[in-house]
Amino acid sequence: MITIAVPCEPSPETRVALVPESVRALTRAGHRVLVERGAGARARYPDAEYAAAGAKVVGGVDLAAVDVLAHVTPLPARVLGALRPGAVTIGLQSPLDDADRLAAANARGVTMLAFERLPRTSRAQAMDALSSQALAAGYRCVLEAAVRLPRFFPLAMTAAGTVPPAKVVVLGIGVAGLQAIATARRLGAKVAANDIRPDSAEEARSVGATFLDTGLDAAEGTGAGGYARALGTSAAERQRAALAPHIADADVLITTAAVPGRPAPRLVTTEMVAAMRPGSVVVDLAAATGGNVEGSRPGEDVRVPSGRGDGAVTVVGLASAPSDLPTDASRLYATNVVNVLGLLVKDGALTVPLDDDIVAGMALTHDGETRAAGAAPAPAAP
Amino acid sequence: MITIAVPCEPSPETRVALVPESVRALTRAGHRVLVERGAGARARYPDAEYAAAGAKVVGGVDLAAVDVLAHVTPLPARVLGALRPGAVTIGLQSPLDDADRLAAANARGVTMLAFERLPRTSRAQAMDALSSQALAAGYRCVLEAAVRLPRFFPLAMTAAGTVPPAKVVVLGIGVAGLQAIATARRLGAKVAANDIRPDSAEEARSVGATFLDTGLDAAEGTGAGGYARALGTSAAERQRAALAPHIADADVLITTAAVPGRPAPRLVTTEMVAAMRPGSVVVDLAAATGGNVEGSRPGEDVRVPSGRGDGAVTVVGLASAPSDLPTDASRLYATNVVNVLGLLVKDGALTVPLDDDIVAGMALTHDGETRAAGAAPAPAAP
Repeated sequence: MITIAVPCEPSPETRVALVPESVRALTRAGHRVLVERGAGARARYPDAEYAAAGAKVVGGVDLAAVDVLAHVTPLPARVLGALRPGAVTIGLQSPLDDADRLAAANARGVTMLAFERLPRTSRAQAMDALSSQALAAGYRCVLEAAVRLPRFFPLAMTAAGTVPPAKVVVLGIGVAGLQAIATARRLGAKVAANDIRPDSAEEARSVGATFLDTGLDAAEGTGAGGYARALGTSAAERQRAALAPHIADADVLITTAAVPGRPAPRLVTTEMVAAMRPGSVVVDLAAATGGNVEGSRPGEDVRVPSGRGDGAVTVVGLASAPSDLPTDASRLYATNVVNVLGLLVKDGALTVPLDDDIVAGMALTHDGETRAAGAAPAPAAP
Repeated sequence: MITIAVPCEPSPETRVALVPESVRALTRAGHRVLVERGAGARARYPDAEYAAAGAKVVGGVDLAAVDVLAHVTPLPARVLGALRPGAVTIGLQSPLDDADRLAAANARGVTMLAFERLPRTSRAQAMDALSSQALAAGYRCVLEAAVRLPRFFPLAMTAAGTVPPAKVVVLGIGVAGLQAIATARRLGAKVAANDIRPDSAEEARSVGATFLDTGLDAAEGTGAGGYARALGTSAAERQRAALAPHIADADVLITTAAVPGRPAPRLVTTEMVAAMRPGSVVVDLAAATGGNVEGSRPGEDVRVPSGRGDGAVTVVGLASAPSDLPTDASRLYATNVVNVLGLLVKDGALTVPLDDDIVAGMALTHDGETRAAGAAPAPAAP
């Protein structure tokens, strides 16, 4: 039996690390769960539902009595410093190299498990919070576009004639991009997509998009682990030139491109945005990490005058798209947390099995030391 | 050759009565089209596109020189009074009994054609602006719900498990309701619907909804022309009681019920709203005509505390949903206008053929007199 705690997340975060359904799974397994009062309120999970699931709802969590602290946004150093030695935290940690947090965790011998360091293996998929949150983000960004577009997404057939479907271009075909494509297709739009990883073409087609071939060869775009890598200047210019006419013709542009550990690549210039029709909408999912679109600002709508007549193109910079879908984003996140917890409990006690590649990968700090990314698992016991 | 003019609509209207594409059809047919500068700007149709389509873009329309004035919102009396005797206006006219407007039109012998008076015949469908705008409204209200819901509409399948689809209830299964059902289904929600006209059950099923049978018999709900009729108090109470559990279980409630010529029926009480979960969303498409939902306010989000724990249900009162989709709503509207115009031009000259049932039905004023609703067509010339 271990004690797992869930704090209130700092504003403006709306998600919560465990939902009542996941609490129930933990309490049924015999664990003790403490939930700070109101922790689920912004995700629309009332305290009473946590209590009904067997959690103890508390005014403040006694951090010294907690084995595992589950969180969404990175924990402040003062919280890490108040945990008991050997306690474990599970959550998102960007940036991974925050000196204050690392120092606070190491001073207490706290093990911080960071979802950003989860290995990309099939066994790890059920714990992949980056993917589950990207799914929410990809869905959300299509809604943000559709609600701002002065046009229908679907083909509209009426007795007075037919209105053609909206044209949507998606740049970046990871989990978020694929979900954006699938959602835009559901709503009836015509979707074209591009990613610098040529392997992504087949994935894009599988969810109904046409692939925009920019003529880059495979080696230029694919980096370690199948993620995208940053392009050189000349390749990036060729990519922009190839995409420009498709973007100019689109009603909606959605950008979701990320390169692990680096600022988001700048894919779209203001000039490319201004070539779109008045009323067109651009949604930049990477606005908070540097922006795929020049001039996008997280949490704001920026109006760029269209070069094609009176009116502007709206550039929507999303700050934290999964937080705009907190009920379900939290539900998926909580399942990821519970699955990680499953690796940490042996015979009812808390362990940190560094011979497990998932735990070894996620462990950012352990036993007073910061661990390098990609640190190999400790040899298994014989 | 006749002269057709399009004025700027008064704020906050964003639609425009003719779009460049429809202007082109008119100018190709030899007509003269005057467009007031900026008339299409809020619908994202630049002046330059009107000019390219053959319109003359003018600083102010010389009303005395206009044969037909096409508009969206009712024209002010001073505009009607400045038209030449015998001129025709085509547009929306609610309320149909505005004394100032009728007097101004009749003083000048202006013929006002009102889309609200279009007969419901198959030949009239291509002119049915109420339907084309209801289509836009039905699509729009689903987006308004989806963007406010803290949950996914579609089933989300992830490596960490499955999130069930959102449950949507639609009340009122006219054009707007059917489009709302179809859009919510496209987005992946589970949809149930009700209308007091039992015939609507089959229509609802044809676009993917289940029909909520409230046990009313056909005669209670169906009025003239197949439209809904107002229910008696006892029937309305039975209907509310039958719907209440479905609404309490829904994530989204969309109401689109209208009874021609009367305030919108009150279908949902605050008590019924408060029985929904925190975070649920209600969209009242009838908010501007009295409201299907108690307490809804046009153009506002009203938060009703949920009786099921911390948090509220959001009641969204839409003011003019088609105006939130102005590019395509205007495009459909303009086609309706052009189709009506087709009835008015004979041998290149303007006529008002009251022997045509469509023109006879739409003509609210003619030759200095206000015409009764359902006035019979004049006998056709032998």
